[in-house]
Amino acid sequence: MKFSSLSLRYENNKLSVLDQKALPQNEVWVEVVDPDIMVALIHSLQVRGAPMIGVAAAISLADYASKGASYSDYVAAAKKLRAARPTAVNLMHAIDKMLQISEDQFNADKVFKVALGIFETDRKLCESIADYGAELVGQKEHILTICNTGGLATVGVGTAMGIIRKAHEQGKDIFVSAMETRPLLQGGRLTAWELNKLNIKGQLIADSMAATLMREQKVDRVIVGADRVATNGDFANKIGTYALAIQAKHHGVPFYMAAPCTTLDPNCTSGDQIPIEMREPNEVLGVKGSFGEIQWAPDIQTYNPAFDVTPAELVTGWIFDKGVFTQEDIKSGKLKDLANQ
Amino acid sequence: MKFSSLSLRYENNKLSVLDQKALPQNEVWVEVVDPDIMVALIHSLQVRGAPMIGVAAAISLADYASKGASYSDYVAAAKKLRAARPTAVNLMHAIDKMLQISEDQFNADKVFKVALGIFETDRKLCESIADYGAELVGQKEHILTICNTGGLATVGVGTAMGIIRKAHEQGKDIFVSAMETRPLLQGGRLTAWELNKLNIKGQLIADSMAATLMREQKVDRVIVGADRVATNGDFANKIGTYALAIQAKHHGVPFYMAAPCTTLDPNCTSGDQIPIEMREPNEVLGVKGSFGEIQWAPDIQTYNPAFDVTPAELVTGWIFDKGVFTQEDIKSGKLKDLANQ
Repeated sequence: MKFSSLSLRYENNKLSVLDQKALPQNEVWVEVVDPDIMVALIHSLQVRGAPMIGVAAAISLADYASKGASYSDYVAAAKKLRAARPTAVNLMHAIDKMLQISEDQFNADKVFKVALGIFETDRKLCESIADYGAELVGQKEHILTICNTGGLATVGVGTAMGIIRKAHEQGKDIFVSAMETRPLLQGGRLTAWELNKLNIKGQLIADSMAATLMREQKVDRVIVGADRVATNGDFANKIGTYALAIQAKHHGVPFYMAAPCTTLDPNCTSGDQIPIEMREPNEVLGVKGSFGEIQWAPDIQTYNPAFDVTPAELVTGWIFDKGVFTQEDIKSGKLKDLANQ
Repeated sequence: MKFSSLSLRYENNKLSVLDQKALPQNEVWVEVVDPDIMVALIHSLQVRGAPMIGVAAAISLADYASKGASYSDYVAAAKKLRAARPTAVNLMHAIDKMLQISEDQFNADKVFKVALGIFETDRKLCESIADYGAELVGQKEHILTICNTGGLATVGVGTAMGIIRKAHEQGKDIFVSAMETRPLLQGGRLTAWELNKLNIKGQLIADSMAATLMREQKVDRVIVGADRVATNGDFANKIGTYALAIQAKHHGVPFYMAAPCTTLDPNCTSGDQIPIEMREPNEVLGVKGSFGEIQWAPDIQTYNPAFDVTPAELVTGWIFDKGVFTQEDIKSGKLKDLANQ
């Protein structure tokens, strides 16, 4: 069996992932020998992106089963994986699907079939999101985005970045401003790298520059990803998204969220129910990556939430694989219906 | 003659400044042998802070005169210094005062007297700002600030940070959230260092976290510095201030600017007349300082304005050395009167 995406490979019975902490300096592939390694890779953000971690976790479970894991070991590993990233719900959805396999059904073929289904579904969901989203984009647009939501963060074309890519491929004149996304620099490292790879025009900005850019350079649209969407339309995404939504509202810039339906949490009726992962204090004191490690700040207390919650009222539209939802759609409960499908 | 502040020293006929790029890792004093060196130090932000660069430039001119510069050399050096930081108006005010010395009056004693007057005035202005500002601060407050506005950025206690320090010294229970202030990290390096030195409780945050902090931890007040204030109350300050003002407005958090009257520009009636310094693109691609040099981003276009403009309508109050001005004061032209004093 052999399959791959931009940041995940399965061949010769081996699962490898592209180390996203090493990019863009080094393209390092890490072999995932067991689910514990996958848990560690998710913690360290070497594997990241809400859709990607769901898929990668499922494949690592399938690989574990194929190597002869017992059902009880499989279930124990699944539970550890499920807890690896508390904010992103795609992971929980993927693992829950893997746990629907009963002990009677449990064998390597069956487990791989389910995991491959999750892989293929993510790819297709990305395509649909890109199609619906690109329809919104005009012939010439300046689009602002945060974090990384492309081919690294999913096994398809991505979510927000997938839309940008599709619009670019449709021949539209797209200019992207990528926020660097402190403290872990997913924008500065990964989105900048993807923009270069895809030959899409763009620029990198510090996170604090978005508001001025909206005023000075007339940003046409903000598109961001999501890690969990509540049924009232509130959603969690990378820290900085909420500030961006406030700024977009202030300037009258359309603000869109893009995510697969696997990011919807039917059990979550409001953003304040989404648990926010707090990360290591030292991430704010400096930077660390394959590019090196530097602490510029003196030792001091920090505050380091990995995500924030954007309330629905700040959102112009929700781009899902099933179409674009408006404020009216949300108010009439259409997101609840989609979540429960 | 001998005088000093936290980041400037004059003794044995030598002017030295504390290298603010080397902090907090190293406390390096750089001798300023002539005004050209001072221009370079201002460009590189080794000397920074709108009030400080005005004072430091004036002292370097006095030192130049004392070493035997001709009047024409003195005037030429003054003009170069005046252009070293286009956004901050304190520098222009200080140099204009130095240029009021006519060729007839020109001698080392006279020049030093004027420069020392500027030095002493800045110290006193800071004291007044701190007194007026601290009156606003309650017995227990969480104050959010950006960039560095303390004893390094002025020759006194500072502006925004001077208020914080004064409130702390008055025995108030102050907790400070310092934004790291990308790309040059004046908050992460300098404000964090000053908070530790002054034993004021606080934490460091990435710039993108301010909005979430306002919502989650209930920030009581934002206080920021300024590099130039227009007579309509608009003001330029470190990039990120404008975004912060929008976020404060959204959350109903009082937003104050603190600056000496030397930051007022009587010739500037609106923020859109303030020139914004654009800095080197590579500052956004990574970090560089005495802590080391790292580029994490691939080579890509960047956008790097050093300052932004906050419109008056987002400001709760303007704390000057003459008192706290309200929206009503601004509308009735009181800032224009102060600027023309």
